[in-house]
Amino acid sequence: MTAATAAVKAALKEQSIETPSWAYGNSGTRFKVFAQPGVPRTPREKLDDAARVHAHTGVAPTVALHIPWDRVDDYAALAGYAEGLGLRLGTINANVFQDDDYRLGSVCHPDPAVRRKALDHLLECVDIMEATGSADLKLWFADGTNYPGQDDVRARQDRLAEALAEVYGRLGDGQRVLLEYKLFEPSFYTTDVPDWGTAYAHCLRLGEKAQVVVDTGHHAPGTNIEFIVAVLLREGKLGGFDFNSRFYADDDLMAGAADPFQLFRIMYEVVRGGGYGPRTAFMLDQCHNVEPKIPAIIRSVLNVQEATAKALLVDREALAAAQRDGDVLAANAVLMDAYSTDVRPLLAEVREETGLEPDPVAAYHRSGWAGRIAAERRSGQQAGWGA
Amino acid sequence: MTAATAAVKAALKEQSIETPSWAYGNSGTRFKVFAQPGVPRTPREKLDDAARVHAHTGVAPTVALHIPWDRVDDYAALAGYAEGLGLRLGTINANVFQDDDYRLGSVCHPDPAVRRKALDHLLECVDIMEATGSADLKLWFADGTNYPGQDDVRARQDRLAEALAEVYGRLGDGQRVLLEYKLFEPSFYTTDVPDWGTAYAHCLRLGEKAQVVVDTGHHAPGTNIEFIVAVLLREGKLGGFDFNSRFYADDDLMAGAADPFQLFRIMYEVVRGGGYGPRTAFMLDQCHNVEPKIPAIIRSVLNVQEATAKALLVDREALAAAQRDGDVLAANAVLMDAYSTDVRPLLAEVREETGLEPDPVAAYHRSGWAGRIAAERRSGQQAGWGA
Amino acid sequence: MTAATAAVKAALKEQSIETPSWAYGNSGTRFKVFAQPGVPRTPREKLDDAARVHAHTGVAPTVALHIPWDRVDDYAALAGYAEGLGLRLGTINANVFQDDDYRLGSVCHPDPAVRRKALDHLLECVDIMEATGSADLKLWFADGTNYPGQDDVRARQDRLAEALAEVYGRLGDGQRVLLEYKLFEPSFYTTDVPDWGTAYAHCLRLGEKAQVVVDTGHHAPGTNIEFIVAVLLREGKLGGFDFNSRFYADDDLMAGAADPFQLFRIMYEVVRGGGYGPRTAFMLDQCHNVEPKIPAIIRSVLNVQEATAKALLVDREALAAAQRDGDVLAANAVLMDAYSTDVRPLLAEVREETGLEPDPVAAYHRSGWAGRIAAERRSGQQAGWGA
Amino acid sequence: MTAATAAVKAALKEQSIETPSWAYGNSGTRFKVFAQPGVPRTPREKLDDAARVHAHTGVAPTVALHIPWDRVDDYAALAGYAEGLGLRLGTINANVFQDDDYRLGSVCHPDPAVRRKALDHLLECVDIMEATGSADLKLWFADGTNYPGQDDVRARQDRLAEALAEVYGRLGDGQRVLLEYKLFEPSFYTTDVPDWGTAYAHCLRLGEKAQVVVDTGHHAPGTNIEFIVAVLLREGKLGGFDFNSRFYADDDLMAGAADPFQLFRIMYEVVRGGGYGPRTAFMLDQCHNVEPKIPAIIRSVLNVQEATAKALLVDREALAAAQRDGDVLAANAVLMDAYSTDVRPLLAEVREETGLEPDPVAAYHRSGWAGRIAAERRSGQQAGWGA
Repeated sequence: MTAATAAVKAALKEQSIETPSWAYGNSGTRFKVFAQPGVPRTPREKLDDAARVHAHTGVAPTVALHIPWDRVDDYAALAGYAEGLGLRLGTINANVFQDDDYRLGSVCHPDPAVRRKALDHLLECVDIMEATGSADLKLWFADGTNYPGQDDVRARQDRLAEALAEVYGRLGDGQRVLLEYKLFEPSFYTTDVPDWGTAYAHCLRLGEKAQVVVDTGHHAPGTNIEFIVAVLLREGKLGGFDFNSRFYADDDLMAGAADPFQLFRIMYEVVRGGGYGPRTAFMLDQCHNVEPKIPAIIRSVLNVQEATAKALLVDREALAAAQRDGDVLAANAVLMDAYSTDVRPLLAEVREETGLEPDPVAAYHRSGWAGRIAAERRSGQQAGWGA
Repeated sequence: MTAATAAVKAALKEQSIETPSWAYGNSGTRFKVFAQPGVPRTPREKLDDAARVHAHTGVAPTVALHIPWDRVDDYAALAGYAEGLGLRLGTINANVFQDDDYRLGSVCHPDPAVRRKALDHLLECVDIMEATGSADLKLWFADGTNYPGQDDVRARQDRLAEALAEVYGRLGDGQRVLLEYKLFEPSFYTTDVPDWGTAYAHCLRLGEKAQVVVDTGHHAPGTNIEFIVAVLLREGKLGGFDFNSRFYADDDLMAGAADPFQLFRIMYEVVRGGGYGPRTAFMLDQCHNVEPKIPAIIRSVLNVQEATAKALLVDREALAAAQRDGDVLAANAVLMDAYSTDVRPLLAEVREETGLEPDPVAAYHRSGWAGRIAAERRSGQQAGWGA
Repeated sequence: MTAATAAVKAALKEQSIETPSWAYGNSGTRFKVFAQPGVPRTPREKLDDAARVHAHTGVAPTVALHIPWDRVDDYAALAGYAEGLGLRLGTINANVFQDDDYRLGSVCHPDPAVRRKALDHLLECVDIMEATGSADLKLWFADGTNYPGQDDVRARQDRLAEALAEVYGRLGDGQRVLLEYKLFEPSFYTTDVPDWGTAYAHCLRLGEKAQVVVDTGHHAPGTNIEFIVAVLLREGKLGGFDFNSRFYADDDLMAGAADPFQLFRIMYEVVRGGGYGPRTAFMLDQCHNVEPKIPAIIRSVLNVQEATAKALLVDREALAAAQRDGDVLAANAVLMDAYSTDVRPLLAEVREETGLEPDPVAAYHRSGWAGRIAAERRSGQQAGWGA
Repeated sequence: MTAATAAVKAALKEQSIETPSWAYGNSGTRFKVFAQPGVPRTPREKLDDAARVHAHTGVAPTVALHIPWDRVDDYAALAGYAEGLGLRLGTINANVFQDDDYRLGSVCHPDPAVRRKALDHLLECVDIMEATGSADLKLWFADGTNYPGQDDVRARQDRLAEALAEVYGRLGDGQRVLLEYKLFEPSFYTTDVPDWGTAYAHCLRLGEKAQVVVDTGHHAPGTNIEFIVAVLLREGKLGGFDFNSRFYADDDLMAGAADPFQLFRIMYEVVRGGGYGPRTAFMLDQCHNVEPKIPAIIRSVLNVQEATAKALLVDREALAAAQRDGDVLAANAVLMDAYSTDVRPLLAEVREETGLEPDPVAAYHRSGWAGRIAAERRSGQQAGWGA
């Protein structure tokens, strides 16, 4: 067990969870965006906040950007600024849903001029990847329709395929396009990439540099997400995750907050399927509508860490033996033994062994950062979804 | 059949569907609000638009107000303006969710000062009812929590009951409070009035002037809404509807657009349960995010009318006989005969008999109203959810 | 319109809907199977009943068999018997879920001996296809797990792929394997083919003779089935349908009974995507638990016919124009015009033009068949799911 | 903390979880009932098995009966037999769904003769309660309809109310009727008691001896069950639970297996609302389709125990303080601290302090009971849902 624990600790020390720049800014629902004190006003301030998360957790070294929310004149300078904070710029997220032209879609729009505009933005994002050193371009399309008959479902697939092919052709070596799917919202009748099957089919035609992103809040009720993870890993098509949690729809709550057992099962399939490592992008994508953002992100990182630790603790030999024997209860018990374990002491040890304080939340509160940014970031425009 | 048809026509001529002032303004999702040309900038302009809907359909004589979105200095004057357009002001809708104080709730907030502020707004709305001559106060609370443990679920019910009691005590003769429920959004863990049972329990304690509002988009997947309608009518607690339609969550699409058969079944239970008449408020509550607003509202009114016509056409004697005999297929066929009927010719006749053009959508397009408002309403701030 | 109507009528006369032998037998829920009078006791009696459905509707010329429920010594003789009734034997359905050995799965079972047994049954079914002249083998697997950890999700995919490959290798020219997916039931944690994506991925690896079957009751709540139909047609992978309807889960109600608008939208995508024709298998798969079986099947056939007629009536030129213009409401209206049409008179004409009575349900009741089989099929064992 | 732990231990020692006689028998889905070795053939053998569960867990002293599955000539003798095993007979469960007469319902059936038959059975169950010393009559009705129009939704409510009133009138002092609700299955369009609101409305009219039972598998997707628990406790109408777990519908898996965090949240609301005690019936109601029944029931009991222990461990003072402060993250963290605790050592201590072995599953396996019953119960008819 000591050897096993050592291996678990070693694996945990290699973990890398990417935080999204937009989660540091204000967000809300269609009913209201509640502003919070100390919210960053610039991409650099978002990086400052992200640096605090990494400083306390030790496992959040990269930050995802969202274009145009994080548009700057000099991306290399922004990358340098990140480096100075001990961070790296991560995935580039394109945005083709917040312009009036995109009312009926972007790359799937019936009007070729709108499609061209959207595609040009995607290509711009590839250019930005060069400047930032980002390896991944994440594409989420709000495209879809609200009413039966509104547009031709199949023609929209053709337009989508055409745009993806052009983006794919622009990718350099070591670059990937990660295609995200989502059941609904903001489109309410059809969504052009509504499920993993559609994303998979497109990625398959594109080639090896195209992979699927699983956002844990983007499924129909009852969908078994860990099954999708297992299948995508088997097909070599799991590109990464957007972690968050939900009770109902795309609630975008803190990862692990709504169903920690599900998060554990997902991480178990990641580990079992060989997906634990740098080829899988482990990203957060959540909205902190009512809670303070930095400690919420810390908490989310810890939740992913805890789920990972439990997944790594599963006695896979015992599990395989029980499965082989068809012993349903014994096999389930092996998995539940790991899940029932309180891994917080283990993670505290891991932190102390890497020079961190054992309790990141407490350390953050002691740091005085929240008070400092509330004082310093009074004037100016706070960052938000559309800012 | 002729006598039956005459009765159906007579019933259809008495129909009254209330349109909501906010549906004439811009709306959207948390991702984007797409602005449209010609959107009203003031409550009076919303009434102007509503007057067009009534002029073409003949069954939309009242308009619901939302406070503070429709706040004016002189409500009596606004009522007079409406009268001049052939309209009346309808239900008053309170808004206790768009102020920064309401981040953790309004009348259920842990802080008594916030609760007091919210309650004062509700009482102000009762005062406005006096001025506008409105009979109904509709209450929808965004209150709830996003995370387990965030607040005490039961204490919030106590606070809710206390606030409702004070509002109820302020109601005059002939006034009602209509309590709306909603499964989720904008709260994602608990909602303080999530289902009809909770709304019913509160209304029961309040008394006869408190009734439940059924918003057709506010249920869990698979919920049988017409069953709830039947039960609430049996209990004397159905206050009215917020009609809209949905494929997924509270999509707020045009009524009847997503599942016209469901709308028919709902209207059938209304008719069967004696709920077709002025004691039930038939309101629209929808968001026209991608389609032009006035013709979308006309279309929604027509969809409700068509469902009503079909419901009225059900041969209730034949249905009762088949039900009594336990003849499943015959009973289902009686219902489906009415649903399969194309009632558009009948409704065209009803319109012509009341001096209207037979096709309200075509008549609206011919009227030139859309072009006129697009030209006239260029400057100023367009109305929206929060405006 | 006359030319268009003539084309619609011609298309409707070519329609072919396959009825399933098992729907003529008793079925039920896990709580109770209610026996009905006159239920067939043998495969031949099922064909006798199917012949009545075809005699009255004119569009149900083939009957799907389920092995072993329809096992006979001489399949060629059974095919001859069908021919004598004006029928043909259709799809062969394998059954690897009703043997005690299959408690933990069939082709995905952890024990290779059980997998071999299941696979041998599938190969037997291919042999039966030769004897019956059936073109399609339909595979639905109840395989899955009930508890996290119970078995290795990914290993089960490997076992599934291995079995499918062996079956595929046995197919002759002009034969297809149709792979069905289902979200859940009878497995409650994982299902080995839970969604169209999984079925698609397997069919893709198998080759051109493998296609996906869409059972309209096998999806998560909120799934847009017509989207899946459009995508599968675009990929050349739509093999056919199992039609039935549902309000909640796999309720297996009469097709079109729960959501006739959805059935219309599905048929529209079939027509639009070029899937209306003999390459797509249009099958019913439903359970008549509380209603008499033969008239329920007739009703289901009529419901599919009506949805098809409406789909064929869509003015596709007008629709394409409105879609091209981004006119959301006009495009939706074109679709709804077709849906709102009462197509029963048109279908009555189609029947009379092909020598049938205009009302199949009435004709069936007049035929006296129900009374005759109730009298004749008193002794012996009635057919049911497991008989 | 020691005092707190002692209080928690004391509370855990008073826990009482009722196991259902039918869970010891074979069960399955509509597709297949897999027989297992050693399954009881008589009510006494079911009690023998239940005694093993209690012997190893110490918290399962009562057994629910299902009539007619557990019909015996002499209920007093059966009660005596139970007493000899250290058990008591618990809730009486009526069955008005497994007779051919009940095809279209029982107490809601359109035919008064069927209603009378069903009602007589319910009254018989009250008589049995006298003989067994049971305090509670649990009523679950499969009543409902499969097709729109099949029966009159509202008339069925009237019939239901009439039957419930007669049963209620027959109750003696200290007896209760517990009314269970269920969204769907085996009825697929309407269910006559589909939700807690309907059950609550009926119980309210009946009086104090009528309370609602919450079966954790009987809700629509996304329903917040702990909210219902909190509301019912506030209204004094929570009668008890049928514990089981589900990923999709009424899967009837082992309690706590699908979502242990939900079970914890439910138990927390029970504790917080004063519902932890003898007035709330904590019952299991599950089906062990693929796993051995006795150890599955032991596991379920342990899962409920663990959730209870965690709920009791919540630092309610700290929680109240954080809630009062509106500190979302701190409040959530207090709850999660308790949930993250590994309570297995604590429960092992509780067992050892009451003279039990620390690991009930291991103790059961060592006992040799499984082998003994497999050997002894070879001949005869095994008990099942309908036996």
